[in-house]
Amino acid sequence: MRGQTAYFEDFAVGDTLELGSVTVSEDEIIEFARAYDPQPFHIDPNAAAHSIFGGLIASGWHTCALTMRLMVDGLLSKAASLGSPGVDQIRWQRPVRPGDTLTARATVLEVRPSQSKPDRGSMRIRTEVTNQEGETVMWMESIGIMGRRPAT
Amino acid sequence: MRGQTAYFEDFAVGDTLELGSVTVSEDEIIEFARAYDPQPFHIDPNAAAHSIFGGLIASGWHTCALTMRLMVDGLLSKAASLGSPGVDQIRWQRPVRPGDTLTARATVLEVRPSQSKPDRGSMRIRTEVTNQEGETVMWMESIGIMGRRPAT
Repeated sequence: MRGQTAYFEDFAVGDTLELGSVTVSEDEIIEFARAYDPQPFHIDPNAAAHSIFGGLIASGWHTCALTMRLMVDGLLSKAASLGSPGVDQIRWQRPVRPGDTLTARATVLEVRPSQSKPDRGSMRIRTEVTNQEGETVMWMESIGIMGRRPAT
Repeated sequence: MRGQTAYFEDFAVGDTLELGSVTVSEDEIIEFARAYDPQPFHIDPNAAAHSIFGGLIASGWHTCALTMRLMVDGLLSKAASLGSPGVDQIRWQRPVRPGDTLTARATVLEVRPSQSKPDRGSMRIRTEVTNQEGETVMWMESIGIMGRRPAT
């Protein structure tokens, strides 16, 4: 990446992007899960303590959402992002617990100019999310559409 | 599925589960995206109108979260759910716009007793989400871990 706005041409296979960190609180875990994933181990600390998880854990979708926020702040807000057609594989490898600090790093796996639309290209990105112990809590491979640098 | 709590044994390949519907408002789309996916086409109706999407659209992660809520209310809250190791493929096929009503339907693709843990099994589920026009806006294939019926 270089310059003010990053375009498709600014990314190459193997590029690694540090996306920053975020700390998640118990309140936020419960608030997200009450709205979108109200399973006992996500919303009820007491029930969670007696579950197989041994305590409250964040919804995997909350971890995805927090990761997306890091992706936007650390990359997409400075790039000619045109959205995404989808994700290939998400793996929630370890629980995310209240107070955890998550750090995301993205690696470019593939870049492909669009055959049908000359103004854009697609990128395959692997994003790895680690906690404050350095353990991977989640990884995913997603597809992003990026605008190409306009001709001048 | 039958009985009070559904266990692993209650699901078979080909089972179809209607998970219900939810309507998403502009306010909720903006609120979610401000927190987790603050790209202009998700948070700013004016900027969105001038984007390739022609108007405000929900974050794909918001659509996932809304679908998860339907999955919890329509299935997991009545089942011996033990969480999920991940998702294989999400495809956001059409934009979700303010006022859209989303309906989710899940199909069981695979059931597999755990080799290492006799108290559980895993299920592969395809969830399809349609809007009020009957158009598919998203589909995903996810993995769920389900407790087996306790011996009596």
